[in-house]
Amino acid sequence: MTRLVCCAGSTRTARIDGISAAGADADLMAHTPSADAEILAYGRPVRSPVVPVSPSGCPTPAVVTRAVLERLGVDFTVVDSGLAEPTGAPTVTVGARTGEDIRERDPVPSAPGAFAAARQFGRALPDDELFLAETVPGGTTTALGVLTVLGEADVLGDRTVSSSLSENPLELKRRVVDEALSASSLAAGDAADEPTVALRRAGDPALAVLCGIAAGALETDTAVTLAGGTQLVAAAACLRHDGYDGPLTLATTSFVDGDPAVDLGRAGRELDLAVTTTDPGFTDDHPAMAAYNRGEAKEGVGMGGALALADRAGLPMADVRDGVREVYDRLLADTDREVPKA
Amino acid sequence: MTRLVCCAGSTRTARIDGISAAGADADLMAHTPSADAEILAYGRPVRSPVVPVSPSGCPTPAVVTRAVLERLGVDFTVVDSGLAEPTGAPTVTVGARTGEDIRERDPVPSAPGAFAAARQFGRALPDDELFLAETVPGGTTTALGVLTVLGEADVLGDRTVSSSLSENPLELKRRVVDEALSASSLAAGDAADEPTVALRRAGDPALAVLCGIAAGALETDTAVTLAGGTQLVAAAACLRHDGYDGPLTLATTSFVDGDPAVDLGRAGRELDLAVTTTDPGFTDDHPAMAAYNRGEAKEGVGMGGALALADRAGLPMADVRDGVREVYDRLLADTDREVPKA
Repeated sequence: MTRLVCCAGSTRTARIDGISAAGADADLMAHTPSADAEILAYGRPVRSPVVPVSPSGCPTPAVVTRAVLERLGVDFTVVDSGLAEPTGAPTVTVGARTGEDIRERDPVPSAPGAFAAARQFGRALPDDELFLAETVPGGTTTALGVLTVLGEADVLGDRTVSSSLSENPLELKRRVVDEALSASSLAAGDAADEPTVALRRAGDPALAVLCGIAAGALETDTAVTLAGGTQLVAAAACLRHDGYDGPLTLATTSFVDGDPAVDLGRAGRELDLAVTTTDPGFTDDHPAMAAYNRGEAKEGVGMGGALALADRAGLPMADVRDGVREVYDRLLADTDREVPKA
Repeated sequence: MTRLVCCAGSTRTARIDGISAAGADADLMAHTPSADAEILAYGRPVRSPVVPVSPSGCPTPAVVTRAVLERLGVDFTVVDSGLAEPTGAPTVTVGARTGEDIRERDPVPSAPGAFAAARQFGRALPDDELFLAETVPGGTTTALGVLTVLGEADVLGDRTVSSSLSENPLELKRRVVDEALSASSLAAGDAADEPTVALRRAGDPALAVLCGIAAGALETDTAVTLAGGTQLVAAAACLRHDGYDGPLTLATTSFVDGDPAVDLGRAGRELDLAVTTTDPGFTDDHPAMAAYNRGEAKEGVGMGGALALADRAGLPMADVRDGVREVYDRLLADTDREVPKA
């Protein structure tokens, strides 16, 4: 049996102006991971007051993942990885708390405990195979933080992290990470072989939980696919620095692969990571798909993993696209909630 | 779409000696609803330290429900309705807290708030149809408490509540309910038309949450099936006393229907409740099924509802029984955990 596990959490790093597109503004964005969990569970928000669609009409990648889950009937589980706002989705508890801005001295004090509890959970899950996904606005910045403290950012080169914005604010991210390191009195590479230190001092709780689940699953010979983009590259780095040297696969979207800010081939070589890329064949005649084609969102909530599962199951991408249209229409039909306007 | 929603919670009423068979002793029993949630989600416990099997070999009815859910692929959701012990299952939060012994003055102060939050949740769920289930050890005693304070226990007659024990300790239950009423300075019928008062003063949090979800779902024209035995009869009474006069269905097992302590026909007439009974055709050649045939457990965790869903989908009961054997074997293969011994 295959299970998709989505680690949904928050970091106040996302509130830094210009860091993330996962929501229309910082207050609405705080609801995005909670709403994403509800979209996975029910196909639309049930408690979250917002519909996670950007002002330009780009919906959360949870729409794509839900469309695939509906069609394939794959089991999935959401783990509360420090949600800042309530969710009506069922979530597993591992003791994660919302992360502070990584420019604080100790932004994720719950990381070691949540990693340990998540590891136990990963060990106990009875599935043959896990696809591990995240939803955490601001997560590419914290991923860059983790890669830097592990000493991998230099190894991976300049093209390390992607963005939910079509214009990746890389200079801003580097400045934030530099400030994070000084606040924690750490230099690049200072947490090599200590991933929980890296996650605590420069990361976010969703990445901590995801790495814990992966570590536990791999210990019990459960196959793990890292379902996502450059945040999952950071997870792979954490697992390598935790001492795991077995096979690892990253399943991501063609949008991340095509991002000029990212060099997945190099990440794959440096971290011994098999990279699978799936192109959903989005067309410009639908606002959601056109937004992805413009370079918005790109990945998240397991989208690349879901597309890989669809491909493996022989589900035609045309059916996936039909599903995306359906889920998107249901989202926008839900008029009680706040939909960001351009 | 159909969804089974299981309200999993605890009441310290279950710790009264001789009240419940849902676990080998009071300390192990406290884990039963948390383990039941895990069995629904994963097919076996992942965080709970116990396997909910009685010393005589009778497994929790979660085994039957899981067997059906696996085969039909029905969506399900567990709502934390005051769990006393941690669970590794994903749960929805509605603010319910573990209930105290109903012989206390105010045993379920969280009932009105949890009922309200559950009602919102029931209103928001997008499904066409809900099957509502419970797992709460001691729940038939609190059901008798609620029926008494609503003034329905006399109407329904002496054969009001069933038991997870083959010898129903009805005298003990009545004595406990009498003490509950005096502790709350209430007489039989004093909470007629005030179900949240009845649930707070003589009930349990799982029943409160279940009634709230039902009320919300019915307000939004979602079909509701009460999936269980006499605890769900108490839920039907609460909905009638809340003013709902539309159709209501109870789906239960042949074990409850055949219980000489229960008169489902009379409950159906008095509460205008359509009763569906399903017989899984258990045979004595398997310890789990033989225990049910001896009158143990009988119902719970949506077993009767799951059997009704199997029947409606045309799934042969022979397949359900095969599934029960499989899930039971997986449970007992999990040797890290405490299995009660006779």
